[in-house]
Amino acid sequence: MRAHNLALVLDTVATSADPPSRASVAAATGLTRATVSALVDDLIAGGLLTELDPPPRTGAGRPAAGLALTSAGPAGLGCEINVDYLAACVVDLTGTVRQHLVEHADQRPAAAAAALAALGRLAARARLAAEADGLVMAGAALAVPGLVSAGTVLDAPNLGWRDVDASALLRGVPELADLPVVVDNEANLAALGELRVPGAEQTFLYVSGEIGIGAGLVIDGELYRGVRGWSGEIGHVTIYPDGRPCRCGATGCLEQYAGQEALAAGEPRAAAALGIALSAAVNLLDVPVVVLGGAYATYFDRLRDGIEAELRRRVLTAGLAPVTLRAARLGTNAAVRGAADAVVREVRDDPAAWLRRVG
Amino acid sequence: MRAHNLALVLDTVATSADPPSRASVAAATGLTRATVSALVDDLIAGGLLTELDPPPRTGAGRPAAGLALTSAGPAGLGCEINVDYLAACVVDLTGTVRQHLVEHADQRPAAAAAALAALGRLAARARLAAEADGLVMAGAALAVPGLVSAGTVLDAPNLGWRDVDASALLRGVPELADLPVVVDNEANLAALGELRVPGAEQTFLYVSGEIGIGAGLVIDGELYRGVRGWSGEIGHVTIYPDGRPCRCGATGCLEQYAGQEALAAGEPRAAAALGIALSAAVNLLDVPVVVLGGAYATYFDRLRDGIEAELRRRVLTAGLAPVTLRAARLGTNAAVRGAADAVVREVRDDPAAWLRRVG
Repeated sequence: MRAHNLALVLDTVATSADPPSRASVAAATGLTRATVSALVDDLIAGGLLTELDPPPRTGAGRPAAGLALTSAGPAGLGCEINVDYLAACVVDLTGTVRQHLVEHADQRPAAAAAALAALGRLAARARLAAEADGLVMAGAALAVPGLVSAGTVLDAPNLGWRDVDASALLRGVPELADLPVVVDNEANLAALGELRVPGAEQTFLYVSGEIGIGAGLVIDGELYRGVRGWSGEIGHVTIYPDGRPCRCGATGCLEQYAGQEALAAGEPRAAAALGIALSAAVNLLDVPVVVLGGAYATYFDRLRDGIEAELRRRVLTAGLAPVTLRAARLGTNAAVRGAADAVVREVRDDPAAWLRRVG
Repeated sequence: MRAHNLALVLDTVATSADPPSRASVAAATGLTRATVSALVDDLIAGGLLTELDPPPRTGAGRPAAGLALTSAGPAGLGCEINVDYLAACVVDLTGTVRQHLVEHADQRPAAAAAALAALGRLAARARLAAEADGLVMAGAALAVPGLVSAGTVLDAPNLGWRDVDASALLRGVPELADLPVVVDNEANLAALGELRVPGAEQTFLYVSGEIGIGAGLVIDGELYRGVRGWSGEIGHVTIYPDGRPCRCGATGCLEQYAGQEALAAGEPRAAAALGIALSAAVNLLDVPVVVLGGAYATYFDRLRDGIEAELRRRVLTAGLAPVTLRAARLGTNAAVRGAADAVVREVRDDPAAWLRRVG
């Protein structure tokens, strides 16, 4: 009950338009003022809430101090490895990005251990800078372009990884050894990142265009992961059955026509191929919105018309309700942002667990 | 509370291995014997439960009578119109099919009103025969091969229907005028029908092969309908981007290579085309089981090897966990069975509403 009420109070403060007083938190939650005050004191002591200076007295009585999420409390460390870059970022409890580091380099020649050690060093730099700023790392999340199960990367064909214990390798960097690390597919984390942007739709297909192409499906504000967590492999939807061989062993996969390498090489069929795959997804799933992220956010203007032409032609319901196509609001940073957000979200959803850790 | 407890008692009886006594229903539900007895009396009076003859006395005391769902109570009327047949069936509260009528005829030349009047007459025959058998029709559900919204068929390209008020037209037959009629996509209802077969998986993609091809996605025992109820349009997934023109206006749709007309004409690419579309669905959705129904249940042995070869080659995770492919246990009757089941399920889920109707 206390755990539930702590989360309720924290969420009420987080979603208030203006910093609320303890009295207005009590009114909004239906809890007594005494209960709210005790919970707020615990949340302040645990570094989750802060009391803002009261405004100057303008009438009788003591003006109430407003409550807000702290910008100096627990934070999430997001890490991302992709085929051609490493990234790390730190997001605080309010959702603000406090550190963001990117290193561009082809990761394919490196072994998984070396690549993850390099990412660990980058993440450690972000962590140390954030801690110098008063933040406390609650955990880390790692975004990888591949199939993940229980912290292990089962298969990341574009990196050439198989059965890589990515969590352990990342934590091999001494500065990260104390942090819990969760590993997830990059498109899934990116979709969650986009979902957290204020004003985001609650149901959409997020498509991440990198060297590989992945998708994250958000339905009613929840990520649909599939039975084994392997949903969203849109990069391996067949576009031309007898087409180019793909690294996965099949032929004619979307990745071969609309992956970042094909885009950079000016592949004329890129937009059409993407439009065909998205039409398949919309026909199967009935999602009204498609969000293009990763490199697609950069190439959006170039791709848009070609994709929309295919959607109009190939989505059975396009005449009843056109599909909305837009670029990711987080641009190419959605996955690493989503990773850090996922850590923060866990603290926000279960502040009692955080208080036990620091108490 | 009473509505909840009525449903709880009914479900406890329905899912017991042997006909339970009132005392064992009380034990299983945690309700008092007096409460259970009152609820059971109401369910018997409403024609939902029946008390079986007690077994002969073998010792001291009165042997307890066993409770069971009645086979003479409320029943569901399932109706189906497809491009080349009409079907009607009646399912009783125990899930047993009590009537099943099929009329084979090409429905495309007929206007929607004429086709639905013919279906209504077929359904009326099934209803009257079932009522002569002591059943009471709780409602009807109509399966159609098209996009449905609020009882209206927005678009059924293979029938040539647009904006057809199918519910009103079916109820235009005098013998059905008093029945509530819900309208749903045939693949959705067929997927629900398969889900109700004892031993069915809880997560699967059901694919219905008729003149058109539709799919119903069941996740954790629930049908995923999509945002507008238009999910599962696998028949319009593109197989050959520059291929044959489809009735929907696009080119190279699955229906053109693996629809029933292509199968009957011996189309050599049917199995491969179906395998390519199913691979796209599994790559996007991570479903471990694909169930082939409609005409595909009939052609299953002929199609299986070709489909499985594509799944092995094109599903990214096939090496980690092969996709299970099987024929629908309800064969070609899944949709009309699922329609009747859906009506029965509603009575079983909310017996209080039924008791108000008959009380």
